[in-house]
Amino acid sequence: MQALRFVPGALWAIDQTLLPDQEVELELRDAAAVADAIRRLAIRGAPLIGVAAGYGVALDAEDGLGLEPVRAAAALLRTARPTAVNLTWAVDRVLAAAQAAPLGELAGATLAEAQRIASEEVAASRAMGNAGADFLAQAGVRRVLTHCNTGLLAAPGDGTALSVLTELHRRGQLEHVLATESRPLLQGARLTVWELSRLGIEHELIVDSAAAGLICGGAVDAVVVGCDRVAASGDVANKVGTLGLALAARAAEIPFVVPMSTIDIGCASGTEIVVEERDPEEVRRVRGRLMTLPGTPVRNPAFDITPAGLISALVTDRGVIAPVGAGEIKDLVERSA
Amino acid sequence: MQALRFVPGALWAIDQTLLPDQEVELELRDAAAVADAIRRLAIRGAPLIGVAAGYGVALDAEDGLGLEPVRAAAALLRTARPTAVNLTWAVDRVLAAAQAAPLGELAGATLAEAQRIASEEVAASRAMGNAGADFLAQAGVRRVLTHCNTGLLAAPGDGTALSVLTELHRRGQLEHVLATESRPLLQGARLTVWELSRLGIEHELIVDSAAAGLICGGAVDAVVVGCDRVAASGDVANKVGTLGLALAARAAEIPFVVPMSTIDIGCASGTEIVVEERDPEEVRRVRGRLMTLPGTPVRNPAFDITPAGLISALVTDRGVIAPVGAGEIKDLVERSA
Repeated sequence: MQALRFVPGALWAIDQTLLPDQEVELELRDAAAVADAIRRLAIRGAPLIGVAAGYGVALDAEDGLGLEPVRAAAALLRTARPTAVNLTWAVDRVLAAAQAAPLGELAGATLAEAQRIASEEVAASRAMGNAGADFLAQAGVRRVLTHCNTGLLAAPGDGTALSVLTELHRRGQLEHVLATESRPLLQGARLTVWELSRLGIEHELIVDSAAAGLICGGAVDAVVVGCDRVAASGDVANKVGTLGLALAARAAEIPFVVPMSTIDIGCASGTEIVVEERDPEEVRRVRGRLMTLPGTPVRNPAFDITPAGLISALVTDRGVIAPVGAGEIKDLVERSA
Repeated sequence: MQALRFVPGALWAIDQTLLPDQEVELELRDAAAVADAIRRLAIRGAPLIGVAAGYGVALDAEDGLGLEPVRAAAALLRTARPTAVNLTWAVDRVLAAAQAAPLGELAGATLAEAQRIASEEVAASRAMGNAGADFLAQAGVRRVLTHCNTGLLAAPGDGTALSVLTELHRRGQLEHVLATESRPLLQGARLTVWELSRLGIEHELIVDSAAAGLICGGAVDAVVVGCDRVAASGDVANKVGTLGLALAARAAEIPFVVPMSTIDIGCASGTEIVVEERDPEEVRRVRGRLMTLPGTPVRNPAFDITPAGLISALVTDRGVIAPVGAGEIKDLVERSA
């Protein structure tokens, strides 16, 4: 099972809004259908959105029709999730490939670029999985707590943080995973549990607030989470709740490990990151049903900032950064430039 | 509005299972009805359960029928929530009063004892509220984060932790409260929000995992939570999630304050406390609706242990213990013996 698969003329995507109740694949035949699937969160996870958007542009490219339909597709897809950096980046790459293509090779060139993006993401996921599994194995980690959703539903290949756990599982060295449910949208309960179950990884689901007690009580050997953004300082912005897990890991003296794909060198430190506030109805309701007084005032930060000092290791597709600090990050960026 | 009110022949209780959607009072006319209300969580919160159970025994006492119905009522109520210490303690007190009563005064003596328990709890709540409000005012605290439900729905009078906030509000010194939703049973979203709203206290609801980021981001001046049990060392067992809040308060260098009623001197430290695991369906479902794969393995600890070293102050009806340690606790227990 893959979150996305391309066949000539269509992108097939698991409808993530229906998981885990139903496993339905959507057949998306043009950019508008892909944009709609991204907009309504049927396709989600930053890297996965990028790959889907790349294919979306390619689906509207047709030899003989020229660049106009490709430009329109790119414009449409860019607005599907305005804050998703990977989306803009992938759309721009495929559009550039279209613009550079010789006459009569437009469709082939755009599709080739979309496929290149997908392959690169799969390779990055695999490299990250290997590097992270090496690191955890060396630290003797067999039981891991993870947060939110970071597997094949969030990123091509085996995902980001979950790619590390998948690789450790393949090596026979992963004993057990604790998965947080990840309110407000329950990506852990709905998606990560579904992924772990398909992978045959032993797991238990917990409410988010149970994590600190279980971590400090010795239930796991490490915490492994994904991230939305890494500053040049090594501070990490990730799904709300990540900071609390990092504080608990520090108190329990176990590794707190963050597989990640891109460093935002233009962002000096976590204090520069503006935390997005999402729709209060996400907190007032659980899957549509009101859980509190109607109109109750809400704070709903989408993520929080974990300072570099609490992070034991950043796992990248180019190796592991440990300890985590501005100097170590600069070194890696320069080495791989 | 009171969570419980006694009128001759009946205990009236707000049905907490229907809050906040409906405000319905149950008319409970005998011990069996009270036991049933406790069992199905229509009446909840350790101190409130104790008071209700006391009245429950009294409702079955009738002059001329002798001790048998009182003993049967006591036995029935003890099994309604087997782990609730306050329940056993209150039932035993009312039963002892019945046994000591002269012939023909059974009903009056049991009711008087049940009312005495209720009055003592109200007085304790008021004393705790005053002591806690003094402490917070002195520390310049105006914005507080609280967890789970600790107000009038959990304990007679104004509750425990919320009694402190209620008193601070009465003094015009409480600016804002952040209330966690408190998964799995959402007592924060369902009950605390209802209480804060009735009290006219400015508040916002958050998902549990948002607490650490908001605390460390400076959104509150203190964390104030209730507790289920305090060991002689000062370690506290409370609703799952409390430890995470204490770690965040420590990282943010703000007071972590625990109003509490009884110290379990027989329990040397937190390591002796066995953490109760509750029904996995509480985690798999939200108010009845399945949120994950059916049968997903679950860890569902009811509470966690916060070590004394993370607690700035214990607030009791006999004064504030700060700093918190075995010596300070022994002093208070000896002073008030």
